[in-house]
Amino acid sequence: MEITIKTDVLATNEQLAQQNKKIFREAGVTAINIMGSPGAGKTTLLERTLERLQGLLKAGVIEGDIYTAKDAERIEAHGVPVVQINTGGACHLDAQMVQKVLPDFKLEQLDLMIIENVGNLVCPVEFNLGEEHKVTVLSIIEGDDKPLKYPLIFKESTAVVLNKVDLLDFCDVNMDNLKRDILSINPDIKIFEISSRLQTGLDAWIKWLLSISKPVS
Amino acid sequence: MEITIKTDVLATNEQLAQQNKKIFREAGVTAINIMGSPGAGKTTLLERTLERLQGLLKAGVIEGDIYTAKDAERIEAHGVPVVQINTGGACHLDAQMVQKVLPDFKLEQLDLMIIENVGNLVCPVEFNLGEEHKVTVLSIIEGDDKPLKYPLIFKESTAVVLNKVDLLDFCDVNMDNLKRDILSINPDIKIFEISSRLQTGLDAWIKWLLSISKPVS
Repeated sequence: MEITIKTDVLATNEQLAQQNKKIFREAGVTAINIMGSPGAGKTTLLERTLERLQGLLKAGVIEGDIYTAKDAERIEAHGVPVVQINTGGACHLDAQMVQKVLPDFKLEQLDLMIIENVGNLVCPVEFNLGEEHKVTVLSIIEGDDKPLKYPLIFKESTAVVLNKVDLLDFCDVNMDNLKRDILSINPDIKIFEISSRLQTGLDAWIKWLLSISKPVS
Repeated sequence: MEITIKTDVLATNEQLAQQNKKIFREAGVTAINIMGSPGAGKTTLLERTLERLQGLLKAGVIEGDIYTAKDAERIEAHGVPVVQINTGGACHLDAQMVQKVLPDFKLEQLDLMIIENVGNLVCPVEFNLGEEHKVTVLSIIEGDDKPLKYPLIFKESTAVVLNKVDLLDFCDVNMDNLKRDILSINPDIKIFEISSRLQTGLDAWIKWLLSISKPVS
């Protein structure tokens, strides 16, 4: 009974996600869905990313949070069009929430739409939003046991950012094991090792974003 | 429609949680439900806690994870009765899952049951398990904006452990703001500042655990 209900919810979401995907593609916008635990560093990564993308491509941002507009305010300071979605308790964004805010953007003027999901390593991955790529941000300080404990999000992601690598000396994380486990779940995933705080490792990440941000045919 | 279904699920869960509470109380066991993001440091805190509780009181542990028995194996090494629950995808423990494993313990021989929930700062708080107290573990490296962004878990918790305080110099976290925001959500919450890695701040936490672990009348 519960499974049937969940299937219905996911089927409806998938329909709306496909509509969103069509809207993004027709406007020539590549959408990415950035997921990760609370405090993985998604918004800070986004800030450093937007600074570096300036003059290279035009990005818009959808900020998902349960409450507050703190993240949208941080993004707005970078002069990028941003809309905050507050889920009001829900633990993930869904395609309907995203569809509702699309008219707030001039999509035909954008190349890239970055959707920052609610901080949660579990639920967001089950709800497609119409994105071309899912990206997981994992703060290495969360521990190298996380991929095997939360495999689905790594399986579904095109890329993973291993963030806060400047803290490697202050935790008991084995980077080789971490990367091995991620690749065992998803051999095709792209792995970026970044410190958003010290601004290291961003070049490869930016290069990848540019490579995926050509209008999709 | 969706709200009605959710209400049903929560009502059923609450019934089972009340049954669990009765079972714990009749056995003279204080149950606590430990919640927090992936990588907040719940299991490491638990390991340090169990070491210090040895000879003071008898604890049992229920480990909740989506997949793997990694955490239970870590706990087992401390010679404490432990049962792993794998939710197989679900983002939180519920009262039914807990009820099913209770016969695996000799409850009348225990004083404290520590239930470590799935790593998730959002969903677990909605599902009572029959515990006397909820405890949130927040790694300070997650950022001082987290309480206002995820207020419910702080509102419902009796205590919060601010963990990994040894990393304060390596992040942009303002401890005063962090504590102020937590207290603005829940003025009665007990705050413990701990580094499980360096084993600082544990004394007050252990003292509190001892104070709540007397048989409940």
